[in-house]
Amino acid sequence: MSDIDRPRAEKLMQDAGLDALVIFQPEAFRYAMGAPAGVATMWGRAGSAIALVPADASAGLAAVVSDHAAGIIRKAAPQVDLRTHRIWIDMLDMSGVETLNQINGAYQVTGVGGPRPETFDRAVCFGLLGDLLKERGLDRASIGADLEFIPAADFEALKQALPGVTWSDGSPVLRLLRMIKSPREIELLRRAARAAEAGLMRMATTVKPGVPLAALSAACKDGAQAFAAESGFALSGHWDFVSVGTDLSDMSAMVTHGALIKADVGALVDGYSSDGARTFTHGPASALASEIFKALENAFAVGLEQLRPGNTFGAVHAAMLGSMRKDGFANYYRGHFGHSVGGGVGIEEWPFFSTDNPEIIQADMVVALEAPFYGQGLGALMIEDQFLITGTGPECMTTLPRTLRDLSME
Amino acid sequence: MSDIDRPRAEKLMQDAGLDALVIFQPEAFRYAMGAPAGVATMWGRAGSAIALVPADASAGLAAVVSDHAAGIIRKAAPQVDLRTHRIWIDMLDMSGVETLNQINGAYQVTGVGGPRPETFDRAVCFGLLGDLLKERGLDRASIGADLEFIPAADFEALKQALPGVTWSDGSPVLRLLRMIKSPREIELLRRAARAAEAGLMRMATTVKPGVPLAALSAACKDGAQAFAAESGFALSGHWDFVSVGTDLSDMSAMVTHGALIKADVGALVDGYSSDGARTFTHGPASALASEIFKALENAFAVGLEQLRPGNTFGAVHAAMLGSMRKDGFANYYRGHFGHSVGGGVGIEEWPFFSTDNPEIIQADMVVALEAPFYGQGLGALMIEDQFLITGTGPECMTTLPRTLRDLSME
Repeated sequence: MSDIDRPRAEKLMQDAGLDALVIFQPEAFRYAMGAPAGVATMWGRAGSAIALVPADASAGLAAVVSDHAAGIIRKAAPQVDLRTHRIWIDMLDMSGVETLNQINGAYQVTGVGGPRPETFDRAVCFGLLGDLLKERGLDRASIGADLEFIPAADFEALKQALPGVTWSDGSPVLRLLRMIKSPREIELLRRAARAAEAGLMRMATTVKPGVPLAALSAACKDGAQAFAAESGFALSGHWDFVSVGTDLSDMSAMVTHGALIKADVGALVDGYSSDGARTFTHGPASALASEIFKALENAFAVGLEQLRPGNTFGAVHAAMLGSMRKDGFANYYRGHFGHSVGGGVGIEEWPFFSTDNPEIIQADMVVALEAPFYGQGLGALMIEDQFLITGTGPECMTTLPRTLRDLSME
Repeated sequence: MSDIDRPRAEKLMQDAGLDALVIFQPEAFRYAMGAPAGVATMWGRAGSAIALVPADASAGLAAVVSDHAAGIIRKAAPQVDLRTHRIWIDMLDMSGVETLNQINGAYQVTGVGGPRPETFDRAVCFGLLGDLLKERGLDRASIGADLEFIPAADFEALKQALPGVTWSDGSPVLRLLRMIKSPREIELLRRAARAAEAGLMRMATTVKPGVPLAALSAACKDGAQAFAAESGFALSGHWDFVSVGTDLSDMSAMVTHGALIKADVGALVDGYSSDGARTFTHGPASALASEIFKALENAFAVGLEQLRPGNTFGAVHAAMLGSMRKDGFANYYRGHFGHSVGGGVGIEEWPFFSTDNPEIIQADMVVALEAPFYGQGLGALMIEDQFLITGTGPECMTTLPRTLRDLSME
């Protein structure tokens, strides 16, 4: 099912003067159509999967997809009007085929046989998009394409292929749409956050002097995967940025008495990535590290107070930076203290908790709030949690305490 | 160290009428500069890391990088002329710092403190590129940018920021450069291929009736990671497309007697991905499956005969398709029977073994040759191996026999 709120999309497109959105980025295609874009998108080029979202909320969704991906897309999103192009993979329906001669017949009946392009034929894809636009009366319309994704070489070809269209950048509308999550997206992000947290818990049990960073990283991943398997879902990915000790770039570091262990981790479910972080030690941290962590705790607390619907993203940044200043950090700075999370590229999504950001915090956003300190020669310290914004305030998606935990005491 | 052959780059740029290449794609930045592009590239946008490769082979390399990535890049590529911009992460050198007051002093001494952008400031990055071009006398030059990567929105801003430059698409030159591998790249691809093969071997030991697809996939990965660890290197990634049984889209399938098991797998070392595939059964395969596999073996063998320096990529395709025709597959088709491999995006790199492709097979290319058959209702069958092209012919990077292996016999 598409995650797009069509009436909201209609309003946003009207405000932007657009008659339709045409989306090429694979993650956004999945979001818009409710089905995966297919393997031919692997090169990051535009054309192999194209989603058409008319501004008119009563007009159906449509897409250009490869013949290889069409079956899965048709099953997952039967309401989408599909146009297919041939890619390099020849996949044959073998129903009832028992001999080689019957294979040749099956190729003819299904139309699968015959020439195929080296990868995919961009001109054919753009031509199919042109057909769709014409049928919808959009071939001379004002259309937003996701120009923050489409490679310049492909956009040039698109403009030449469909010269009647007035093209503009639809990325800002797409961002505004995606910053509010559907119930399905919220559930995926909730699962992802819980799995990542289970990984952090597993990691915490393995921390002992002499344990290498790589083992902590592996424990994070194993714990997250085990949680997912026990809960009946699969992870589509996992990432971690773990630092151990004073040298933040030393990937071969081992746990030592009192050394800072910062674990910034995420799990992915169906392409949706969580984001969260904790800091541990084995043995007491230094007085300076503890003092810095106290300031991060204070900053996180005041940021959380500001994390409510109707407030601006900038207000959160101002409160957190102000807290650091109050605690004596006259020159500390962060470009952002967190961000939206979800199914885009990059772990961090727009909007950000950044200086003077006027964007409004709204219900059904899912965001990560973070207070980090990176001290080369001391170590990294960080608190980060993921929240669903509800009508009344933030709902934390995880349960771990946000303290600087000395695991030798447990 | 940069993987670029500068004299060859000079020749290719001269042929294309370019005075320099300006590269934005993170993988290509790594290739050109010999150091990672940094975390601010995670959104797939242009600017945070920019590599400048002058056509003049005697002119030094230069780059625009984030202050966060600069330390690692300076260490890995000390000869590159770096210009840095500030990103959202505030990382402080804590050398000699023992109190909060000293932290404030350290911020001032290092210049790390003070305002930072929300993520990175594209206009600043393009400005720094402009400075570099001016210093090199290239501010009114003919420059190729990687327009197959740069998002259209960013390219528009680049043209406005640096209007004196005559921009064109440098992607074709970059492709031609990257299709010939450096000794370092060859070694990475060799390690990756061996690790992936070790994963296939591990998987083969776990195949038994009732074993689920997910367990085979996990065995592939575990075996590859274990091999890498034993050999003293780490994998930067792993992927697999495993199918079990007759329904190619059934990810919950289990091994049954005689069912086809196709494992198309790759391991990544330092971002370089291998590509290879084998087909197994537990119990004898059907007569039809065996007959199809025999045709794939024949096609692979004649393709391998054509895989020699001086021959065209198209000749390999023609030979393999011809072999399938000769074996009775009148309508079977493949857009390509393999491709270059390496450190780009997507597992498959240009050039491809495709119809009439006039590109010449050359020494120091690393390619994957593949003969697949996807039969929904029957199962998938595939043979794929990775080869280094030497002056005298192909050198296979793996050792596993290419047969349809019945593992119940072992």
